[in-house]
Amino acid sequence: MTTLAHPDPAQDGAPEESAPTTRCRILAVAERSFREIGYQKTTVADIAKTLKMSPANVYRFFDSKKAINEAVVERVTGEVEALIARIADAAGLSAEARLRQAITMLHRDTVERWAGYPRIHEMVEAAMGESWEVCRHHVDRIGAVFERIVRDGVRSGEFEAEDPAVAARCVQAAILRHTHPLMVSQLPQVPEPTLEQIVAFALRALRPARPAAG
Amino acid sequence: MTTLAHPDPAQDGAPEESAPTTRCRILAVAERSFREIGYQKTTVADIAKTLKMSPANVYRFFDSKKAINEAVVERVTGEVEALIARIADAAGLSAEARLRQAITMLHRDTVERWAGYPRIHEMVEAAMGESWEVCRHHVDRIGAVFERIVRDGVRSGEFEAEDPAVAARCVQAAILRHTHPLMVSQLPQVPEPTLEQIVAFALRALRPARPAAG
Repeated sequence: MTTLAHPDPAQDGAPEESAPTTRCRILAVAERSFREIGYQKTTVADIAKTLKMSPANVYRFFDSKKAINEAVVERVTGEVEALIARIADAAGLSAEARLRQAITMLHRDTVERWAGYPRIHEMVEAAMGESWEVCRHHVDRIGAVFERIVRDGVRSGEFEAEDPAVAARCVQAAILRHTHPLMVSQLPQVPEPTLEQIVAFALRALRPARPAAG
Repeated sequence: MTTLAHPDPAQDGAPEESAPTTRCRILAVAERSFREIGYQKTTVADIAKTLKMSPANVYRFFDSKKAINEAVVERVTGEVEALIARIADAAGLSAEARLRQAITMLHRDTVERWAGYPRIHEMVEAAMGESWEVCRHHVDRIGAVFERIVRDGVRSGEFEAEDPAVAARCVQAAILRHTHPLMVSQLPQVPEPTLEQIVAFALRALRPARPAAG
Protein backbone atom coordinates (compact mmCIF):
# COMPACT_ATOMS: atom_id res chain seq x y z
CA MET A 1 0.00 0.00 0.00
CA THR A 2 2.57 2.58 -1.06
CA THR A 3 -0.13 5.17 -1.71
CA LEU A 4 -1.01 5.02 1.98
CA ALA A 5 2.59 5.19 3.11
CA HIS A 6 3.48 7.97 0.68
CA PRO A 7 0.33 9.99 0.06
CA ASP A 8 0.30 12.02 -3.09
CA PRO A 9 -0.46 15.61 -2.10
CA ALA A 10 -1.33 16.48 -5.69
CA GLN A 11 -4.55 14.51 -5.28
CA ASP A 12 -6.01 17.17 -3.02
CA GLY A 13 -6.26 20.92 -2.87
CA ALA A 14 -2.67 21.55 -1.80
CA PRO A 15 -0.63 20.50 -4.84
CA GLU A 16 2.54 22.30 -3.84
CA GLU A 17 2.65 21.06 -0.26
CA SER A 18 4.85 18.12 0.69
CA ALA A 19 3.28 15.11 2.36
CA PRO A 20 5.16 15.60 5.66
CA THR A 21 3.92 19.19 5.79
CA THR A 22 0.31 18.12 5.27
CA ARG A 23 0.70 15.46 7.95
CA CYS A 24 2.12 18.06 10.29
CA ARG A 25 -0.71 20.50 9.64
CA ILE A 26 -3.31 17.80 10.27
CA LEU A 27 -1.69 17.04 13.62
CA ALA A 28 -1.47 20.70 14.63
CA VAL A 29 -5.15 21.29 13.86
CA ALA A 30 -6.18 18.03 15.54
CA GLU A 31 -4.21 18.83 18.69
CA ARG A 32 -5.79 22.26 18.95
CA SER A 33 -9.26 20.85 18.41
CA PHE A 34 -8.80 18.00 20.92
CA ARG A 35 -7.62 20.56 23.44
CA GLU A 36 -10.24 23.24 22.89
CA ILE A 37 -13.33 21.40 21.63
CA GLY A 38 -12.53 17.99 23.07
CA TYR A 39 -11.66 14.62 21.60
CA GLN A 40 -15.24 13.35 21.65
CA LYS A 41 -16.74 16.20 19.69
CA THR A 42 -13.94 16.51 17.14
CA THR A 43 -14.52 14.59 13.91
CA VAL A 44 -12.14 13.87 11.05
CA ALA A 45 -14.53 15.94 8.90
CA ASP A 46 -14.04 18.95 11.23
CA ILE A 47 -10.28 18.63 11.00
CA ALA A 48 -10.47 18.41 7.19
CA LYS A 49 -12.78 21.42 7.04
CA THR A 50 -10.45 23.59 9.12
CA LEU A 51 -7.62 22.62 6.78
CA LYS A 52 -9.78 23.24 3.70
CA MET A 53 -9.15 19.72 2.46
CA SER A 54 -11.39 16.71 1.91
CA PRO A 55 -11.86 14.13 4.68
CA ALA A 56 -10.56 11.60 2.13
CA ASN A 57 -7.26 13.42 2.06
CA VAL A 58 -6.97 13.28 5.86
CA TYR A 59 -7.72 9.55 5.67
CA ARG A 60 -4.82 9.17 3.22
CA PHE A 61 -2.55 10.06 6.14
CA PHE A 62 -4.44 8.60 9.10
CA ASP A 63 -6.96 5.82 8.92
CA SER A 64 -8.97 6.96 11.96
CA LYS A 65 -9.36 9.64 14.63
CA LYS A 66 -7.63 7.18 16.95
CA ALA A 67 -4.60 7.10 14.61
CA ILE A 68 -4.53 10.92 14.60
CA ASN A 69 -4.65 10.98 18.39
CA GLU A 70 -1.79 8.48 18.59
CA ALA A 71 0.31 10.64 16.27
CA VAL A 72 -0.53 13.76 18.31
CA VAL A 73 0.49 12.01 21.53
CA GLU A 74 3.70 10.71 19.90
CA ARG A 75 4.62 14.18 18.72
CA VAL A 76 3.87 15.85 22.05
CA THR A 77 5.64 13.20 24.12
CA GLY A 78 8.55 12.99 21.67
CA GLU A 79 9.22 16.69 22.11
CA VAL A 80 9.39 16.56 25.90
CA GLU A 81 11.37 13.30 25.85
CA ALA A 82 14.04 15.00 23.73
CA LEU A 83 14.26 17.88 26.20
CA ILE A 84 14.55 15.53 29.17
CA ALA A 85 17.20 13.40 27.46
CA ARG A 86 19.25 16.52 26.79
CA ILE A 87 19.10 17.46 30.48
CA ALA A 88 20.17 13.94 31.47
CA ASP A 89 23.21 14.22 29.22
CA ALA A 90 24.22 17.70 30.42
CA ALA A 91 27.91 17.72 31.32
CA GLY A 92 29.14 19.22 34.56
CA LEU A 93 25.89 18.91 36.49
CA SER A 94 25.35 16.68 39.52
CA ALA A 95 22.81 13.86 39.26
CA GLU A 96 20.64 15.72 41.75
CA ALA A 97 20.68 18.90 39.66
CA ARG A 98 19.85 16.97 36.50
CA LEU A 99 17.01 15.08 38.15
CA ARG A 100 15.61 18.30 39.55
CA GLN A 101 15.82 20.00 36.14
CA ALA A 102 14.29 17.05 34.32
CA ILE A 103 11.33 16.90 36.71
CA THR A 104 10.83 20.66 36.52
CA MET A 105 10.88 20.50 32.73
CA LEU A 106 8.32 17.67 32.66
CA HIS A 107 6.08 19.57 35.04
CA ARG A 108 6.27 22.82 33.09
CA ASP A 109 5.63 21.07 29.81
CA THR A 110 2.53 19.38 31.22
CA VAL A 111 1.18 22.56 32.78
CA GLU A 112 1.76 24.64 29.65
CA ARG A 113 0.18 22.06 27.39
CA TRP A 114 -2.76 20.88 29.43
CA ALA A 115 -3.70 23.11 32.35
CA GLY A 116 -6.65 25.33 31.59
CA TYR A 117 -8.18 22.91 29.07
CA PRO A 118 -10.87 21.00 30.94
CA ARG A 119 -11.66 18.87 27.87
CA ILE A 120 -8.13 17.58 27.57
CA HIS A 121 -8.99 14.57 29.71
CA GLU A 122 -11.01 13.15 26.80
CA MET A 123 -7.96 12.98 24.58
CA VAL A 124 -5.74 11.66 27.36
CA GLU A 125 -8.28 9.04 28.34
CA ALA A 126 -8.78 7.99 24.73
CA ALA A 127 -5.02 7.57 24.42
CA MET A 128 -4.76 5.69 27.72
CA GLY A 129 -7.72 3.48 26.86
CA GLU A 130 -7.44 2.79 23.12
CA SER A 131 -3.77 3.48 22.49
CA TRP A 132 -2.12 2.33 25.64
CA GLU A 133 1.11 1.28 23.91
CA VAL A 134 1.82 4.87 22.87
CA CYS A 135 1.43 6.08 26.46
CA ARG A 136 3.37 3.14 27.81
CA HIS A 137 6.33 3.91 25.56
CA HIS A 138 6.38 7.46 26.81
CA VAL A 139 6.33 6.33 30.44
CA ASP A 140 9.11 3.85 29.67
CA ARG A 141 11.28 6.40 27.88
CA ILE A 142 11.00 8.95 30.69
CA GLY A 143 11.65 6.12 33.17
CA ALA A 144 14.78 5.14 31.24
CA VAL A 145 16.13 8.70 31.37
CA PHE A 146 15.45 8.94 35.11
CA GLU A 147 17.14 5.59 35.58
CA ARG A 148 20.23 6.85 33.76
CA ILE A 149 20.43 9.84 36.11
CA VAL A 150 19.89 7.66 39.18
CA ARG A 151 22.65 5.26 38.04
CA ASP A 152 25.03 8.21 37.55
CA GLY A 153 24.14 9.40 41.04
CA VAL A 154 24.75 5.97 42.56
CA ARG A 155 28.10 5.79 40.75
CA SER A 156 29.16 9.20 42.07
CA GLY A 157 27.96 8.44 45.59
CA GLU A 158 25.27 11.13 45.51
CA PHE A 159 22.48 8.57 45.55
CA GLU A 160 21.94 5.17 47.06
CA ALA A 161 19.50 2.79 45.41
CA GLU A 162 19.37 -0.97 45.66
CA ASP A 163 17.70 -1.09 42.24
CA PRO A 164 18.08 2.13 40.21
CA ALA A 165 15.33 1.06 37.79
CA VAL A 166 12.85 0.69 40.65
CA ALA A 167 14.03 3.95 42.23
CA ALA A 168 13.47 5.74 38.89
CA ARG A 169 9.94 4.31 38.69
CA CYS A 170 9.27 5.48 42.24
CA VAL A 171 10.40 9.00 41.35
CA GLN A 172 8.03 8.88 38.36
CA ALA A 173 5.16 7.82 40.60
CA ALA A 174 5.96 10.46 43.20
CA ILE A 175 5.73 13.28 40.64
CA LEU A 176 2.54 12.00 38.99
CA ARG A 177 0.43 14.70 40.59
CA HIS A 178 2.65 17.31 38.94
CA THR A 179 3.30 15.66 35.59
CA HIS A 180 0.32 13.51 34.57
CA PRO A 181 -2.01 15.52 32.31
CA LEU A 182 -5.12 14.17 34.05
CA MET A 183 -3.80 15.13 37.47
CA VAL A 184 -2.48 18.51 36.39
CA SER A 185 -5.71 19.45 34.65
CA GLN A 186 -8.00 18.03 37.36
CA LEU A 187 -6.12 18.88 40.54
CA PRO A 188 -5.16 22.50 39.99
CA GLN A 189 -6.67 23.52 43.30
CA VAL A 190 -4.48 21.32 45.48
CA PRO A 191 -1.64 23.64 46.44
CA GLU A 192 0.41 21.09 48.34
CA PRO A 193 2.76 19.46 47.97
CA THR A 194 4.43 21.98 45.71
CA LEU A 195 6.78 20.69 43.02
CA GLU A 196 9.75 21.81 45.13
CA GLN A 197 8.43 19.89 48.15
CA ILE A 198 7.89 16.65 46.26
CA VAL A 199 11.29 16.92 44.54
CA ALA A 200 12.96 17.43 47.93
CA PHE A 201 11.04 14.42 49.27
CA ALA A 202 12.11 12.20 46.36
CA LEU A 203 15.73 13.34 46.70
CA ARG A 204 15.66 12.46 50.40
CA ALA A 205 14.58 8.96 49.44
CA LEU A 206 17.51 8.71 47.02
CA ARG A 207 20.27 10.04 49.29
CA PRO A 208 22.54 7.62 51.09
CA ALA A 209 21.14 6.53 54.43
CA ARG A 210 24.25 7.74 56.21
CA PRO A 211 26.90 10.26 55.18
CA ALA A 212 29.83 8.75 53.29
CA ALA A 213 32.74 8.02 55.62
CA GLY A 214 35.53 10.61 55.53
CA MET B 1 -38.41 23.98 54.51
CA THR B 2 -38.94 21.17 56.98
CA THR B 3 -40.55 18.97 54.35
CA LEU B 4 -37.27 19.05 52.41
CA ALA B 5 -35.13 18.44 55.45
CA HIS B 6 -37.35 15.68 56.76
CA PRO B 7 -39.03 14.06 53.79
CA ASP B 8 -42.22 12.25 54.56
CA PRO B 9 -41.85 8.72 53.23
CA ALA B 10 -45.61 8.24 53.40
CA GLN B 11 -45.97 10.50 50.39
CA ASP B 12 -44.51 7.87 48.09
CA GLY B 13 -44.79 4.15 47.49
CA ALA B 14 -42.80 3.09 50.54
CA PRO B 15 -44.97 4.12 53.46
CA GLU B 16 -43.27 1.94 56.03
CA GLU B 17 -39.72 2.88 55.15
CA SER B 18 -37.85 5.49 57.19
CA ALA B 19 -36.38 8.50 55.43
CA PRO B 20 -32.76 7.54 56.21
CA THR B 21 -33.40 4.10 54.72
CA THR B 22 -34.81 5.62 51.52
CA ARG B 23 -31.85 7.97 51.29
CA CYS B 24 -29.49 5.07 51.74
CA ARG B 25 -31.22 3.00 49.05
CA ILE B 26 -31.07 5.90 46.60
CA LEU B 27 -27.33 6.23 47.20
CA ALA B 28 -26.70 2.49 46.83
CA VAL B 29 -28.57 2.35 43.52
CA ALA B 30 -26.92 5.54 42.27
CA GLU B 31 -23.43 4.29 43.14
CA ARG B 32 -24.01 1.02 41.29
CA SER B 33 -25.39 2.85 38.27
CA PHE B 34 -22.55 5.41 38.18
CA ARG B 35 -20.10 2.54 38.34
CA GLU B 36 -21.67 0.23 35.81
CA ILE B 37 -23.58 2.48 33.39
CA GLY B 38 -21.58 5.66 33.98
CA TYR B 39 -22.37 9.02 35.52
CA GLN B 40 -23.23 10.67 32.19
CA LYS B 41 -25.86 8.14 31.14
CA THR B 42 -27.48 7.75 34.55
CA THR B 43 -30.52 9.96 35.11
CA VAL B 44 -32.46 10.67 38.27
CA ALA B 45 -35.43 9.04 36.51
CA ASP B 46 -33.40 5.82 36.03
CA ILE B 47 -32.50 5.76 39.71
CA ALA B 48 -36.13 6.31 40.67
CA LYS B 49 -37.29 3.59 38.28
CA THR B 50 -34.87 1.02 39.71
CA LEU B 51 -36.16 1.88 43.18
CA LYS B 52 -39.78 1.73 42.01
CA MET B 53 -40.40 5.26 43.25
CA SER B 54 -41.25 8.52 41.52
CA PRO B 55 -38.47 10.91 40.43
CA ALA B 56 -40.24 13.49 42.64
CA ASN B 57 -39.53 11.31 45.66
CA VAL B 58 -35.82 11.13 44.80
CA TYR B 59 -35.83 14.92 44.44
CA ARG B 60 -37.25 15.18 47.95
CA PHE B 61 -33.91 13.82 49.16
CA PHE B 62 -31.49 15.24 46.59
CA ASP B 63 -32.10 18.27 44.46
CA SER B 64 -29.91 17.10 41.56
CA LYS B 65 -27.79 14.29 40.18
CA LYS B 66 -24.81 16.33 41.32
CA ALA B 67 -26.14 16.29 44.90
CA ILE B 68 -26.55 12.50 44.67
CA ASN B 69 -23.00 12.15 43.43
CA GLU B 70 -21.70 14.29 46.28
CA ALA B 71 -23.52 12.13 48.80
CA VAL B 72 -22.17 8.95 47.15
CA VAL B 73 -18.62 10.33 47.29
CA GLU B 74 -19.08 11.40 50.91
CA ARG B 75 -20.31 7.95 51.86
CA VAL B 76 -17.54 6.11 50.04
CA THR B 77 -14.77 8.38 51.29
CA GLY B 78 -16.22 8.48 54.81
CA GLU B 79 -16.00 4.70 55.03
CA VAL B 80 -12.34 4.51 54.07
CA GLU B 81 -11.45 7.54 56.22
CA ALA B 82 -12.88 5.74 59.26
CA LEU B 83 -10.77 2.67 58.50
CA ILE B 84 -7.60 4.74 58.05
CA ALA B 85 -8.23 6.71 61.24
CA ARG B 86 -8.60 3.45 63.17
CA ILE B 87 -5.23 2.25 61.86
CA ALA B 88 -3.60 5.56 62.83
CA ASP B 89 -4.88 5.14 66.37
CA ALA B 90 -3.82 1.49 66.72
CA ALA B 91 -1.88 1.02 69.94
CA GLY B 92 1.42 -0.85 70.03
CA LEU B 93 2.33 -0.36 66.39
CA SER B 94 5.28 1.66 65.13
CA ALA B 95 4.59 4.75 63.01
CA GLU B 96 6.11 2.94 60.06
CA ALA B 97 3.82 -0.05 60.47
CA ARG B 98 0.77 2.19 60.79
CA LEU B 99 1.71 4.25 57.74
CA ARG B 100 2.28 1.08 55.75
CA GLN B 101 -1.08 -0.37 56.83
CA ALA B 102 -2.95 2.86 56.16
CA ILE B 103 -1.52 3.13 52.63
CA THR B 104 -2.24 -0.52 51.91
CA MET B 105 -5.82 -0.08 53.12
CA LEU B 106 -6.34 3.01 50.92
CA HIS B 107 -4.93 1.17 47.92
CA ARG B 108 -7.06 -1.93 48.45
CA ASP B 109 -10.19 0.12 48.97
CA THR B 110 -9.59 2.03 45.72
CA VAL B 111 -8.84 -1.11 43.73
CA GLU B 112 -11.85 -2.98 45.07
CA ARG B 113 -14.20 -0.10 44.45
CA TRP B 114 -12.99 1.25 41.11
CA ALA B 115 -10.74 -1.09 39.19
CA GLY B 116 -12.56 -2.92 36.45
CA TYR B 117 -15.15 -0.17 35.95
CA PRO B 118 -13.97 1.85 32.97
CA ARG B 119 -16.88 4.29 33.29
CA ILE B 120 -16.00 5.23 36.84
CA HIS B 121 -13.88 8.11 35.62
CA GLU B 122 -17.08 9.97 34.67
CA MET B 123 -18.27 10.00 38.26
CA VAL B 124 -14.85 10.85 39.63
CA GLU B 125 -14.37 13.65 37.12
CA ALA B 126 -17.84 15.02 37.81
CA ALA B 127 -17.00 15.07 41.51
CA MET B 128 -13.59 16.65 40.92
CA GLY B 129 -15.03 19.21 38.54
CA GLU B 130 -18.42 20.15 39.97
CA SER B 131 -18.03 19.15 43.60
CA TRP B 132 -14.43 19.85 44.32
CA GLU B 133 -15.05 20.70 47.98
CA VAL B 134 -16.19 17.14 48.70
CA CYS B 135 -13.02 15.70 47.15
CA ARG B 136 -10.86 18.29 48.80
CA HIS B 137 -12.22 17.42 52.24
CA HIS B 138 -11.39 13.78 51.64
CA VAL B 139 -7.83 14.62 50.58
CA ASP B 140 -7.49 16.86 53.66
CA ARG B 141 -8.83 14.24 56.05
CA ILE B 142 -6.51 11.53 54.74
CA GLY B 143 -3.66 14.05 54.83
CA ALA B 144 -4.48 14.86 58.46
CA VAL B 145 -4.33 11.17 59.42
CA PHE B 146 -0.99 10.72 57.64
CA GLU B 147 0.30 13.83 59.37
CA ARG B 148 -0.68 12.40 62.76
CA ILE B 149 1.30 9.23 62.01
CA VAL B 150 4.31 11.22 60.74
CA ARG B 151 4.28 13.39 63.89
CA ASP B 152 4.19 10.26 66.06
CA GLY B 153 7.15 8.92 64.09
CA VAL B 154 9.12 12.14 64.48
CA ARG B 155 8.40 12.10 68.22
CA SER B 156 9.60 8.50 68.57
CA GLY B 157 12.68 9.11 66.40
CA GLU B 158 11.55 6.73 63.67
CA PHE B 159 11.03 9.55 61.21
CA GLU B 160 12.66 12.87 60.52
CA ALA B 161 10.63 15.61 58.88
CA GLU B 162 11.20 19.32 58.97
CA ASP B 163 7.49 19.88 58.42
CA PRO B 164 5.33 16.81 59.15
CA ALA B 165 2.34 18.35 57.34
CA VAL B 166 4.38 18.75 54.16
CA ALA B 167 5.88 15.26 54.55
CA ALA B 168 2.37 13.82 54.88
CA ARG B 169 1.28 15.62 51.69
CA CYS B 170 4.33 14.25 49.90
CA VAL B 171 3.44 10.70 50.97
CA GLN B 172 -0.06 11.30 49.62
CA ALA B 173 1.34 12.49 46.30
CA ALA B 174 3.77 9.58 46.08
CA ILE B 175 0.97 7.01 46.41
CA LEU B 176 -1.40 8.74 43.98
CA ARG B 177 -0.78 6.16 41.28
CA HIS B 178 -1.98 3.46 43.68
CA THR B 179 -4.80 5.28 45.44
CA HIS B 180 -6.40 7.80 43.09
CA PRO B 181 -9.46 6.25 41.40
CA LEU B 182 -8.57 7.76 38.01
CA MET B 183 -5.05 6.41 38.16
CA VAL B 184 -6.04 3.00 39.49
CA SER B 185 -8.73 2.55 36.86
CA GLN B 186 -6.67 3.98 33.97
CA LEU B 187 -3.19 2.68 34.72
CA PRO B 188 -3.80 -0.96 35.54
CA GLN B 189 -1.19 -2.05 33.01
CA VAL B 190 1.74 -0.26 34.63
CA PRO B 191 3.24 -2.94 36.85
CA GLU B 192 5.91 -0.77 38.44
CA PRO B 193 6.41 0.64 40.90
CA THR B 194 4.49 -1.86 42.98
CA LEU B 195 2.76 -0.63 46.11
CA GLU B 196 5.52 -2.21 48.21
CA GLN B 197 8.20 -0.40 46.21
CA ILE B 198 6.59 3.01 46.51
CA VAL B 199 5.92 2.52 50.24
CA ALA B 200 9.57 1.58 50.77
CA PHE B 201 10.61 4.67 48.78
CA ALA B 202 8.38 6.98 50.84
CA LEU B 203 9.65 5.43 54.10
CA ARG B 204 13.24 6.03 52.99
CA ALA B 205 12.36 9.70 52.51
CA LEU B 206 10.95 9.82 56.04
CA ARG B 207 13.78 8.06 57.87
CA PRO B 208 16.40 10.08 59.68
CA ALA B 209 19.28 11.08 57.42
CA ARG B 210 21.78 9.54 59.81
CA PRO B 211 21.37 6.86 62.46
CA ALA B 212 20.62 8.20 65.91
CA ALA B 213 23.79 8.47 67.98
CA GLY B 214 24.25 5.69 70.50
